[in-house]
Amino acid sequence: MTEPREAETDAAEDEFQLSKQDIEAIGKAIDDGDSPALDSLLEPAHAADIADLIEQLTPARRRVFLQLYSGEIDGEILSEIDEGIRDEVIEQLPHEVLAEAVREMDSDDVVDLIEDMGAPEQQALLAALDESDRAAIEQSLTYPEYSAGRLMQSEVVTAPEHWTVGETIDFLRSEEWLPDQFYHVVLVDPRRHPIGYVTLGKLLASRRDVALRDITEDSFRTISVLQEEGDVAHAFNKYHLISTPVVDEHDRLVGMITIDDAMSVLDEEHEEDILRLAGVGDESAITDSVAETLRQRLPWLMVNLVTAIIASLVIAVFETTIQQVVALAVLMPIVASMGGNAGTQTLTVAVRALATKSLTGSNVWRVVRREAVVGILNGFAFAVVMGLVAWVWFDGISLAAVIGIAMIVNLAIAALAGILIPLALEKAGADPALASGTFVTTVTDVVGFFAFLGLASAVLL
Amino acid sequence: MTEPREAETDAAEDEFQLSKQDIEAIGKAIDDGDSPALDSLLEPAHAADIADLIEQLTPARRRVFLQLYSGEIDGEILSEIDEGIRDEVIEQLPHEVLAEAVREMDSDDVVDLIEDMGAPEQQALLAALDESDRAAIEQSLTYPEYSAGRLMQSEVVTAPEHWTVGETIDFLRSEEWLPDQFYHVVLVDPRRHPIGYVTLGKLLASRRDVALRDITEDSFRTISVLQEEGDVAHAFNKYHLISTPVVDEHDRLVGMITIDDAMSVLDEEHEEDILRLAGVGDESAITDSVAETLRQRLPWLMVNLVTAIIASLVIAVFETTIQQVVALAVLMPIVASMGGNAGTQTLTVAVRALATKSLTGSNVWRVVRREAVVGILNGFAFAVVMGLVAWVWFDGISLAAVIGIAMIVNLAIAALAGILIPLALEKAGADPALASGTFVTTVTDVVGFFAFLGLASAVLL
Repeated sequence: MTEPREAETDAAEDEFQLSKQDIEAIGKAIDDGDSPALDSLLEPAHAADIADLIEQLTPARRRVFLQLYSGEIDGEILSEIDEGIRDEVIEQLPHEVLAEAVREMDSDDVVDLIEDMGAPEQQALLAALDESDRAAIEQSLTYPEYSAGRLMQSEVVTAPEHWTVGETIDFLRSEEWLPDQFYHVVLVDPRRHPIGYVTLGKLLASRRDVALRDITEDSFRTISVLQEEGDVAHAFNKYHLISTPVVDEHDRLVGMITIDDAMSVLDEEHEEDILRLAGVGDESAITDSVAETLRQRLPWLMVNLVTAIIASLVIAVFETTIQQVVALAVLMPIVASMGGNAGTQTLTVAVRALATKSLTGSNVWRVVRREAVVGILNGFAFAVVMGLVAWVWFDGISLAAVIGIAMIVNLAIAALAGILIPLALEKAGADPALASGTFVTTVTDVVGFFAFLGLASAVLL
Repeated sequence: MTEPREAETDAAEDEFQLSKQDIEAIGKAIDDGDSPALDSLLEPAHAADIADLIEQLTPARRRVFLQLYSGEIDGEILSEIDEGIRDEVIEQLPHEVLAEAVREMDSDDVVDLIEDMGAPEQQALLAALDESDRAAIEQSLTYPEYSAGRLMQSEVVTAPEHWTVGETIDFLRSEEWLPDQFYHVVLVDPRRHPIGYVTLGKLLASRRDVALRDITEDSFRTISVLQEEGDVAHAFNKYHLISTPVVDEHDRLVGMITIDDAMSVLDEEHEEDILRLAGVGDESAITDSVAETLRQRLPWLMVNLVTAIIASLVIAVFETTIQQVVALAVLMPIVASMGGNAGTQTLTVAVRALATKSLTGSNVWRVVRREAVVGILNGFAFAVVMGLVAWVWFDGISLAAVIGIAMIVNLAIAALAGILIPLALEKAGADPALASGTFVTTVTDVVGFFAFLGLASAVLL
């Protein structure tokens, strides 16, 4: 079924992914308007790969592709397409294709698909569903965005708490409808409160007369429907959960979250953190248009411009000093740059530690102290190096001393700003990943220029 | 079993995590040397939370804690502890506790635990294991680090391809040893080649006389034992895999990778990307010592110092110009800073797109073009803004024109550097996350200073 492989990277992907030749052939089929060729080329492809293909086509080709292939677009492909592109795809799909796709999807995927639509489009799609599916989705949509209620699927396999293994297996064999993927049978009491769960492995390995309640898992926990999805993903990763029942405010079972959805959320949260740290809108995608990209990036560049001007105002204070010792203009960006980099190092570690909840009340002062010590030691190291460079370059021992001291001051402040600013933002309820960078580099620029030029004015003039 | 909850964040964690009062009580028990109190306080805690606690103790308290609690440290707790701290913990544990812990662990966790140990320590621990377990682990250790072979567990539930559902269930009921968690029964031919798998859900829902081969999953794929673990994690996330058989070079089944391990790898890879982008050693942890932290950060600050000096050399070329128009010294950091930020935005998006394989041959030129257009448009926008600022501030229309043009040049170059440098590094086989940042800001500093000061020399003097 599979061929022996030697490659160390990308082998698993190659098995799924479309090859370069495939993609060229697909491009040709699109240009030729050859719908049967397209169908047969894409027949062996995984839905995720077809979604990737759709994302990577130019908008013009994508339109043609959707006309040729729309009959084959199913729920699985739709749920794999990136949100930005998906809206475009949905608009171009015939209503009946979309309705059929939605009927096949798990409730969590339908929610993900329609939650950003306008009310009329939502209603049109929901009308295609069975009444019970529709009710489940409408219920999900009442929960806040990014909550467990939006992430869960309403399809759950349950059993009364008094059942035996045999009764459960008989039930599963007789039940016409079961979720595609499920990993636990949830035990519920008569009021639908989940009271434990049994793994399918245990169910299979136990004799028919064993009571379910005797083989439940110790790790059983429930998640509140209002829980933030990032926290859910974090809990899945930390506690090695596979699927977890979701309960409403009355502790009644309303759905189930499975690890594959938690993994996607974890992936998205990381992506957002990285993009936020870089001052890029957190929904940036490589498929965005020029206008979209500008909209995301201009605001942060504008913030940066303001902070850069603030740093320049500090330089302006020392104009006369610079005019007399022009070497200061040459050296001052070095002090600022080193501070900015050292600050960014500290803040990245701090932001990550906050995100993974490993920076807590019990170790925070120890970490702050460590960063301060590291900052001062870094400062001394680079004071020596940069002092020597300045001495040799400009032949001035006082200038060397000034840059050395400025380096120590700025690297120490950089370390403190790098840890204290994210902590303060977290405390204030803001996302430290989003704004720390700008604050920290503003501090290091201002302190760097002020320490260096101020000392120089005092010592050199 | 669970209390109704209202909180929107941290509810799921609160259910597991140790409370502030618990942690204080634990601290007191450690100081009092009260081993029974410690046992009863930690009795309800999840292994992951006990591991977190151990990580967050000061080294001195950790030593006392391990003496008081060593009898309770099991395989689960050990595998949850961060690597840096784990080595310290292992050294302090009595050999019999360690041996017992290792005996309980899945083979992938044992591999993770011992792979970085010296040969004598490895041998000492392996000696505690059954012969078959030991053989499986020694086999895993022959595969390259960060390969699927190290990540997999050797425990797999298999069935001959001709079995029925009934035969499989009887086998599972009679088998004394089964993995804690498994999600598929893998069908193997007589030469142990995996030829398909059946989900436990399907197994439970099918009649006893159904042949396994009639209910296998379409999504069945295998992973090569040599596959890089990051690619494995990416495939799990992309294709929604739950567990996947691992095969050797002869396509024979050697193990299984489950999604929880893939999720941990995905998490670690992201962490590394973020830390590398910030120029921090990619194994930084909040628990590192001062010496460890310095060792990770100094090299990158040194690289930054060299690039900052290179940028300063450009300034030095224009010393006379600056002496005559000192406003240049005030304004030049703004041009460089805007270039650095715009370049970082582009490079972050590019590095992420490369990591998630969404920047490919078929869209690369489109993305490069988009970035260039965005760079030029950003340049024009900030040329106008900064031109006005400079005009008002220094009352010079020529100076305003100079900074405007320099801004356009630098933001356009920043965009190109931000996308082309990561692409070039990827092509050269280097990790774009690791080195792009330094290259890009060097380019934007040098271009920024050169364009601004060079133009100023030509126009203003």
